[in-house]
Amino acid sequence: MEFSRRHFLGAGSALAAAGLMSAAGQASAQTAKVPAKWDETVDFLIVGTGFAGLAAALEAHQIGIKNVLVIDKMPTPGGNSIINGGAVAAAGTDMQKKAGISDNPDLLYSDILRAGGGLAHPELARHIADESVENFYWLRDKIGVQFEAVTYHGGHSVKRSHSVTAHMGSGFINPMLAKCKEYNIPIQLRTYLEDIIEDDKGVVLGAKVRTGYRFPRANSGKVKYIRARNGVLLAAGGFAQNVTMRMSHDPRLTAAFGSTNQPGATGEALQDAQFLGANTVHMDWIQLGPWTSPDEQGFGKTPLLTEPLVGYGPMVDPANAKRFVQETGNRKVRADAIVAIGHPVVMYACAKNVFGQAVGKNMSKEMFDSLLKSGVVHEFKTLKDLAAFYKIPYDALVAENDKFNGYMKAMNDPQFHTKFFKDGVPNTEANGPFYAWRLWPRVHHCMGGLEINNKAQVLDARHNVIPGLFAAGEVTGGVHGMVRLGTVAVADCMIFGRTAARSAKAYKQPM
Amino acid sequence: MEFSRRHFLGAGSALAAAGLMSAAGQASAQTAKVPAKWDETVDFLIVGTGFAGLAAALEAHQIGIKNVLVIDKMPTPGGNSIINGGAVAAAGTDMQKKAGISDNPDLLYSDILRAGGGLAHPELARHIADESVENFYWLRDKIGVQFEAVTYHGGHSVKRSHSVTAHMGSGFINPMLAKCKEYNIPIQLRTYLEDIIEDDKGVVLGAKVRTGYRFPRANSGKVKYIRARNGVLLAAGGFAQNVTMRMSHDPRLTAAFGSTNQPGATGEALQDAQFLGANTVHMDWIQLGPWTSPDEQGFGKTPLLTEPLVGYGPMVDPANAKRFVQETGNRKVRADAIVAIGHPVVMYACAKNVFGQAVGKNMSKEMFDSLLKSGVVHEFKTLKDLAAFYKIPYDALVAENDKFNGYMKAMNDPQFHTKFFKDGVPNTEANGPFYAWRLWPRVHHCMGGLEINNKAQVLDARHNVIPGLFAAGEVTGGVHGMVRLGTVAVADCMIFGRTAARSAKAYKQPM
Repeated sequence: MEFSRRHFLGAGSALAAAGLMSAAGQASAQTAKVPAKWDETVDFLIVGTGFAGLAAALEAHQIGIKNVLVIDKMPTPGGNSIINGGAVAAAGTDMQKKAGISDNPDLLYSDILRAGGGLAHPELARHIADESVENFYWLRDKIGVQFEAVTYHGGHSVKRSHSVTAHMGSGFINPMLAKCKEYNIPIQLRTYLEDIIEDDKGVVLGAKVRTGYRFPRANSGKVKYIRARNGVLLAAGGFAQNVTMRMSHDPRLTAAFGSTNQPGATGEALQDAQFLGANTVHMDWIQLGPWTSPDEQGFGKTPLLTEPLVGYGPMVDPANAKRFVQETGNRKVRADAIVAIGHPVVMYACAKNVFGQAVGKNMSKEMFDSLLKSGVVHEFKTLKDLAAFYKIPYDALVAENDKFNGYMKAMNDPQFHTKFFKDGVPNTEANGPFYAWRLWPRVHHCMGGLEINNKAQVLDARHNVIPGLFAAGEVTGGVHGMVRLGTVAVADCMIFGRTAARSAKAYKQPM
Repeated sequence: MEFSRRHFLGAGSALAAAGLMSAAGQASAQTAKVPAKWDETVDFLIVGTGFAGLAAALEAHQIGIKNVLVIDKMPTPGGNSIINGGAVAAAGTDMQKKAGISDNPDLLYSDILRAGGGLAHPELARHIADESVENFYWLRDKIGVQFEAVTYHGGHSVKRSHSVTAHMGSGFINPMLAKCKEYNIPIQLRTYLEDIIEDDKGVVLGAKVRTGYRFPRANSGKVKYIRARNGVLLAAGGFAQNVTMRMSHDPRLTAAFGSTNQPGATGEALQDAQFLGANTVHMDWIQLGPWTSPDEQGFGKTPLLTEPLVGYGPMVDPANAKRFVQETGNRKVRADAIVAIGHPVVMYACAKNVFGQAVGKNMSKEMFDSLLKSGVVHEFKTLKDLAAFYKIPYDALVAENDKFNGYMKAMNDPQFHTKFFKDGVPNTEANGPFYAWRLWPRVHHCMGGLEINNKAQVLDARHNVIPGLFAAGEVTGGVHGMVRLGTVAVADCMIFGRTAARSAKAYKQPM
């Protein structure tokens, strides 16, 4: 198959990250020194404006921390959280009860541990499980988040993902931002954390930042030293967009892979903490989404088409027309299989399946038309046209298509054990036309990060607490282990963000 | 099953490590400051006397580094290396050719990458593959290591493990120590690296050590500052014996698990480097050996009995008499299954299998008798006696034993897909007596560690080289990825140790 690099380079964000890294490469290998004079003094400095950072800021205000400052290097607030799916896990709420769902913290705890494959830190998972209900009520009753329904996500024992009416993360972030405004909590954008500053005993005093920072230009903006009397919270997210950093931990994740994340997910705050001796855990558990198209950017719309059609249409390697994986396998199984092939694969289904399962169901006709118009999805009258377009060997494709249809009919796939459904129809010209699209995984979530305890305090390599340093959300590791359950990360961010605020309140910096 | 903690506590080394950690927990969270006066100045300071440290010392001498000092915290030299299996991988030697084995560096490279599951750093694997033959000749022709045969280890494409006549790591270590003596390279034992010292630009200047150190007593011995003009090499091994540290990365590996390692494998040098901002990779890939007995210490002799008998006798959970895993599965599959059960399991086989496959083959009759005498292996005339001794439900065991024998006869195990062999006989009283022993995994090898480049320079969290800091061997990560191939770690230690010496020679410390 002729494969153009255009689609990789077109991603943009990966390149930006690569550019950023070479700039950061020139930075000092050391942390910044304590300044002769601080430009500003606050009580609690929060780095990041996603779920974790904003939850921490609001909690801090509510428990009486006076001078809270929230900074973010990007020009807009919300980080990855604002483009999140828009649901939070909670186990045992009144909303579940009303829907007839019986749930409790122990059940959530055991679900997290099971998904984590033995690597989740039990005391962190326990903390989330124990706080999830209170956190849900806090969001609804004290912050004003509007919830719509309790939904199901894979791996959970019961429906416990509380979705917001906005159907995306902005349904949390916007009310949280409004509350920050009401509380007069300053949110300073384009402000980059360049270094965390500690004294000669290893106590975190504050930070060196750059105001008026233009991402991703290293050394842009003006240096400012901020003293933080109750400590610094890192709530700066993951490193999915930092190619060099993710390749240290998983060399497969070259610039050939884009990310579903916002471009600022580049992990510098995590690196800054490492220079204080902070320990990192599970950094090599980097989750890829197998459902994205190389022909659109970010998360895109293709996942909404791909997911309802697994088990209805085949995925093939265009180089040889062969299927290569259980189409209904989990994210990791599918992503690893495509990565091993090394180039985008093709998925297709006939119109009867596409319109029976996806379009008009979880995807509107308008959205589907826009995918056709932008050339992400293509329509073909015949399998011959489809094969010609993607340069797939035609005879081999016919044979593979017949085989897939036969497996579907028998409801049994002896080759890859793909699961079929009763309402699937054979992918034939009679049931056509065919719709086809390419798939190439994107880096989606960093399971690993800074090691913390259940007070959101950052631990160093010798397992001591780093005084005055807190972390919450995707910048931390150990909460989920190998695999995270959908919507638990949202609870994780908020619960540990709020916990960090309480720990900061209790923290007395040695003078 | 009644399960006594005695066997866990009896391991001793885990406890020692735990004790050490609480002591280390009192240490400063910061690295030591540059002293007003150095007590001693050398050219190259090497921490560790295993394969990596000694290879580095010898190479350093041979290329003309004058003042080399090797230190080790333990009272005897050789680290884990001296108790290693005693073979080194090399791809394309005259010894292979003589044995009719065709091999080359590309084949070794691809074997390492395949075993690494995508996580091995290609440039590190390449370096080992490219240097393995020269390293073998160096060992044989310049150091005087005596080789016996080219043997096979699982996962390699061909026989390429060059075994020494001594049949264990001392076959390398002893000639290396003799050569150090000949070269007048001082090896200072009971000397503990307490901290690596860098200047305010992040350049490594030397180390703070404790001489006359009594492992594992923190703060024992006398503080001494050693300046190292050409840098410091960390060749201090892994952290399999450090319970707190390994639980950060894999919470399952509690003190309930012993280790096959020498007690000094506690990882402090790795932690010291983290305080300079050194990056760590793959720390959660900690390999367990599934073949050890809780009734003897360390690696022990049980693995030599267990391995030839997989596929001949069943492994059962004593709580319910059920088999639980493919007995012929790989190390990870078996260890994970036993860990999930949470208590030791029982393996047994009838005398005809035991004497047909193990005793008198890879294990002498004397060794087997010593296992019987020490109560590691027990002899039972009947299955009833066996069940009574291990408190296994008898009727269930009879049923399971019959089932296993049936699978064996049919050469097909529909339950766990265990592989059987033609010379296996049914485990019956007629083929008895039965021999039985318990299995409980031990922590065996830390795949992860400090990130290095192919010059053995340590990289920091921002992917810059830490000037003057080198690392080689098990203290590093990234070389092997998820799984290491047998005897490649030995080549890894020696090749990167020697590479570090060459890098130190080329290194000019900024004055």
